[in-house]
Amino acid sequence: MEAQKANTFSPNSLGQDVNPDLDIERKNISFTIERLTNILDGGAENTKIRREVEAVLQADPEFSQENQYFQNQNERYENAIRKSVYFLQKKAEMGWKEDGPEQKYCYRFLSNDLAFNIHIVFMKSILALGTSEQINKWIPLAKKYFIIGTYAQTELGHGSNLRGLETTATFDVATQEFILNTPSFSAMKWWPGDLGRSATHAVVFAQLYLKERCYGMHPFIVQIRSLRDHSPAQGITIGDIGPKMGFQNIDNGFLILKNVRVPKENMLARFSQVLPDGQYKKQGSEKINYLTMIVIRVTMIQTEIVPNLMKACTIAIRYSVVRRQSELKPGDPEAKILDYQTQQQKLFPQLAAVYAFHFLCDYLQDIFNRCYNHTKEGKFDLLPEVHALAAGIKVITTEYCSAGVEVCRRACGGHGYSLLSGLPSIYERLVASCTYEGENTVLLLQTARFLIKCYGMAQMGQPVPSSVAYFSSISFGKCQAQEKKDFLNPDIYIDAYKHRAFRIIENVAIKLQQLVQSGKAQHEAWNQCTVQLARAAMVHSHYIVVQKFAEALEKFAKESAIQRVLKNLCDLFALHGIFSNAGDFMQDEYFSTDQIDRVTETYLDLLAVIRRDAVPLVDAFDFSDACLNSALGSYDGHVYRRLYEWAKKSPTNHQDNRVFKTYLKPLFQNALSKL
Amino acid sequence: MEAQKANTFSPNSLGQDVNPDLDIERKNISFTIERLTNILDGGAENTKIRREVEAVLQADPEFSQENQYFQNQNERYENAIRKSVYFLQKKAEMGWKEDGPEQKYCYRFLSNDLAFNIHIVFMKSILALGTSEQINKWIPLAKKYFIIGTYAQTELGHGSNLRGLETTATFDVATQEFILNTPSFSAMKWWPGDLGRSATHAVVFAQLYLKERCYGMHPFIVQIRSLRDHSPAQGITIGDIGPKMGFQNIDNGFLILKNVRVPKENMLARFSQVLPDGQYKKQGSEKINYLTMIVIRVTMIQTEIVPNLMKACTIAIRYSVVRRQSELKPGDPEAKILDYQTQQQKLFPQLAAVYAFHFLCDYLQDIFNRCYNHTKEGKFDLLPEVHALAAGIKVITTEYCSAGVEVCRRACGGHGYSLLSGLPSIYERLVASCTYEGENTVLLLQTARFLIKCYGMAQMGQPVPSSVAYFSSISFGKCQAQEKKDFLNPDIYIDAYKHRAFRIIENVAIKLQQLVQSGKAQHEAWNQCTVQLARAAMVHSHYIVVQKFAEALEKFAKESAIQRVLKNLCDLFALHGIFSNAGDFMQDEYFSTDQIDRVTETYLDLLAVIRRDAVPLVDAFDFSDACLNSALGSYDGHVYRRLYEWAKKSPTNHQDNRVFKTYLKPLFQNALSKL
Repeated sequence: MEAQKANTFSPNSLGQDVNPDLDIERKNISFTIERLTNILDGGAENTKIRREVEAVLQADPEFSQENQYFQNQNERYENAIRKSVYFLQKKAEMGWKEDGPEQKYCYRFLSNDLAFNIHIVFMKSILALGTSEQINKWIPLAKKYFIIGTYAQTELGHGSNLRGLETTATFDVATQEFILNTPSFSAMKWWPGDLGRSATHAVVFAQLYLKERCYGMHPFIVQIRSLRDHSPAQGITIGDIGPKMGFQNIDNGFLILKNVRVPKENMLARFSQVLPDGQYKKQGSEKINYLTMIVIRVTMIQTEIVPNLMKACTIAIRYSVVRRQSELKPGDPEAKILDYQTQQQKLFPQLAAVYAFHFLCDYLQDIFNRCYNHTKEGKFDLLPEVHALAAGIKVITTEYCSAGVEVCRRACGGHGYSLLSGLPSIYERLVASCTYEGENTVLLLQTARFLIKCYGMAQMGQPVPSSVAYFSSISFGKCQAQEKKDFLNPDIYIDAYKHRAFRIIENVAIKLQQLVQSGKAQHEAWNQCTVQLARAAMVHSHYIVVQKFAEALEKFAKESAIQRVLKNLCDLFALHGIFSNAGDFMQDEYFSTDQIDRVTETYLDLLAVIRRDAVPLVDAFDFSDACLNSALGSYDGHVYRRLYEWAKKSPTNHQDNRVFKTYLKPLFQNALSKL
Repeated sequence: MEAQKANTFSPNSLGQDVNPDLDIERKNISFTIERLTNILDGGAENTKIRREVEAVLQADPEFSQENQYFQNQNERYENAIRKSVYFLQKKAEMGWKEDGPEQKYCYRFLSNDLAFNIHIVFMKSILALGTSEQINKWIPLAKKYFIIGTYAQTELGHGSNLRGLETTATFDVATQEFILNTPSFSAMKWWPGDLGRSATHAVVFAQLYLKERCYGMHPFIVQIRSLRDHSPAQGITIGDIGPKMGFQNIDNGFLILKNVRVPKENMLARFSQVLPDGQYKKQGSEKINYLTMIVIRVTMIQTEIVPNLMKACTIAIRYSVVRRQSELKPGDPEAKILDYQTQQQKLFPQLAAVYAFHFLCDYLQDIFNRCYNHTKEGKFDLLPEVHALAAGIKVITTEYCSAGVEVCRRACGGHGYSLLSGLPSIYERLVASCTYEGENTVLLLQTARFLIKCYGMAQMGQPVPSSVAYFSSISFGKCQAQEKKDFLNPDIYIDAYKHRAFRIIENVAIKLQQLVQSGKAQHEAWNQCTVQLARAAMVHSHYIVVQKFAEALEKFAKESAIQRVLKNLCDLFALHGIFSNAGDFMQDEYFSTDQIDRVTETYLDLLAVIRRDAVPLVDAFDFSDACLNSALGSYDGHVYRRLYEWAKKSPTNHQDNRVFKTYLKPLFQNALSKL
């Protein structure tokens, strides 16, 4: 019943009836869906605001996503610009503030369809790197979209290694200007969003040259297009980078600078200044900028990564109780595919991961807030740990969620290949997060560097940060669990994850040490260990996820029904991880073959337990049909009718018969006399 | 040198020079690339024919793939029809026969761009299921494309379970016609290629009803569109299923039949006939049809699955020696990303898999041929084994190759998301193969059924088919390898794979037995074991791949250089499998923790060994630039110039300024007075 309430505003073009195969899944639910929705939203008040926002956006035909899957890149871009500009009016009209609670719910509903995401980063970079004069000059204009900015850092030949960027900015004392140049093909700016066809300004990162000496990378505000007619500014070559997987709404662009002059005031000068005579002056600590990077990662996990896996689970699980295929029992009608163990084994670990990552986000936000408060007091002590944690968590969430979406998509069989399922576009969008905001392998190695350092400290008896406290406390031994039910004890599996992480980190730390002792240079030894170092960072992050999920359960001690379903998911997440990585857990015979066999059985038993709650658990995510935009996943479960109705609208069905006349008719004529 | 010869016909719009970073990889090659190319082609004569065919197609501007990534679904379809019709003329002109050696090389070059793939299946089904009169009537017309056919089996609600199909064909004795109907939404035909906008005829599968009794699924030839004006035939509703991942060139369609009448002669009647009075008559054995299904799978692995991973490896490995990022040694220039262990760990297992699967195809073709010859003599003894083998191999190759392409794509960082890299379209195309021609989970369970049966036979001392001979011969023990070099002995790792497979199959066989003994119904017990059964089929197939790769090495005893590089790849493939699935191999302590650690070290060492041969190993695949169609993967390595040149051609760069005028200019005007 709660579930229906949660969706009362869903428009339902196919009528109010629900497919009985889906309807029955919503009978006799063992927990209150609405309560779980509130938990996921962070409180009933948030749920209320979210629904109000969604209802407003949904009721406005300007925001319809109906034809999205039929549009080409140019149409998607134009649509995004139109919606984004209209959205500004709408926000003003509704009185929704930039920093108000509505903002993130708008994003949840509209994100795939908006432009100007990098314009936000443009503003954030000015706020972070600019002086107060610079902020006062640019931010009011940018906030009202009187100018549109982009963040031009990445180059065609340079991504992760910022020191390798080639763009130059040379100070000309005579005119008090910086002269910006793109010295080679590989130096052109490439990928920035909003650059290709929209932006008027850019924060351009370039190597600063003063009197022929390089001072490293600095940010410059550059006008790149005319505000009057949008033509490229002098010395600027600019364009769109062309077709790509996903992000059709965004005009990722390229930018070539040839002797582009900007006034001295355009170097963002909060942390370093160029004096009129060309002298360089540093001021303050740039460490604080790490916070910006971290907060971007935290926000993207919360608003982009986890919600997209939620959507995919909703679509795949609802479809799997509507789709019937073959018989489970000979002579019976065809069975729901969700009743097959193999289908459960595909989908439920993804569902468990969504919930695991949801609670992980809460933890990450908490520790980030603590770090932020320390920093405000001038203490940077928590920064390395939070940086390492956020990097590792960015990797594990993006890897698991993008792989998970693809599992969900493929679990829908042929229909998962139809764009109308909604799943291909979710995958395209999500998998890119493995690369942007820090390429995952690069990030893992950053986390690994932190872990190796902490391991060394722990070995020397020094205190270590809390997330790696187990480096000091671990005692080698074997898993004590005997019976199947023992493996449902969080203490048992948390210890197992801890042991696994410690063993892998220690292994590679020792290898690294041995290589150096055997005469290898430090950098060479490091490179020979990077596969294992990356793995170490991953298994450490995996441990954090399991530990924080189990911890979160304690908060629901007074709500036994909610706690029970969440506990099942936590157990599943943890046991699936052991089942899928048994070798790690069998090191040093921590787990015996028998114990692993029992883990497997316990894990498989859990699939059948979660089966009963599967639909309510995705209903709790409370995505409206308009937001899901999936022919397979809508609340009423009328999958086949919707696929057919939507397909009929496809442009492939609205062509003249030119192809027939030109190419086929001349062939077919030959058959006329014979048939 | 050989490599250059192999590409002499490559057009090179950017000049004849090769990027020095790529050029140096082709110096001092340890083996003869041309010889390896010949081996992959199945002989130097084949290489010659292939290159001649490719040269002809490449020289013809009608076959250019230049704008492929810029086209929308309608354009891709029209383009495919145009090329396919032109290709008919070209083949006639060149004297290339349907069954000639050129055919498969044309496909290698053109496949992404052609239509009428299902027309071929239409013909094959008539040849397999039709009487000689039917064959004589339809095949000559179809062969010349005077009619275009499709194969209408899958329904909107029914894929894998053919018995569940709902379409009906009821015999009307009065008119001697069959009346075909689509009784529900879920019964409409959905997905058949060439159906949406091209085909005039279809082989429609329907439940045959004679005097109100159902005789199961039968094939009927139905005319669905007019040859004269292409309008739908009476009672036919037909269209395109709309946007989808990949296969934009194909018009996958839907088909609804309402009292469509076809004459009695249109039921394909090789195996069953309806007599004029409505009596049903069966004749011959349909078992032979399994061969058709198997041969389709064998062909698709050879011509579609493996070549696409070859392409992805070529693109990613060439790009990885051109792309430089960060420093390996402080103060050095940025390093080639292929010199990082983490990059090698991503790409080389894919490269090894390509070679493994190439030799696996040879084995599969051999055993299929043997089976075919037996069948011609009326002996069906090999059929179950070959069916199980081909199903398992279809699964392992499609799973590994599609996952491998995605690894290659992501290993190219941001540029892997550009369609111009060629990689997204390869992934889209390849991953679909996990679903079509037998959904992978369904196929694994078919293979598992065979394995469980053979396990039972072996337990009772009965003889078993050769591919599962190890069921009878296995002796439990532990791996005897001690030193790192021992793990490079194929006998050691083949035994390990054999032990792993046997242990997992035995485990699930015992579980199945216990469940039944404990009172579970057979079908219930089976469902409770399916996750493990699917896994059993997978690890058995994995064993076959390793075993056949190692066997293939023996053929090159007289060519030490070739044998050495292939042996490295075989070792890598085998050890990567152990490294990635250590838990399986540690069961019963077959491998100890120490041994696993040594496998890991041996595996990581091999990455550095293969590094030297990486570029020559992909050059040996001998894809011309036109065939690869990748800005990242071309022979000359001018990645950045090509990305830029291609992006400039994108339609996103050839729009008027309507978007600016309509949406942005009104905003920007407000800034004019302030900047």
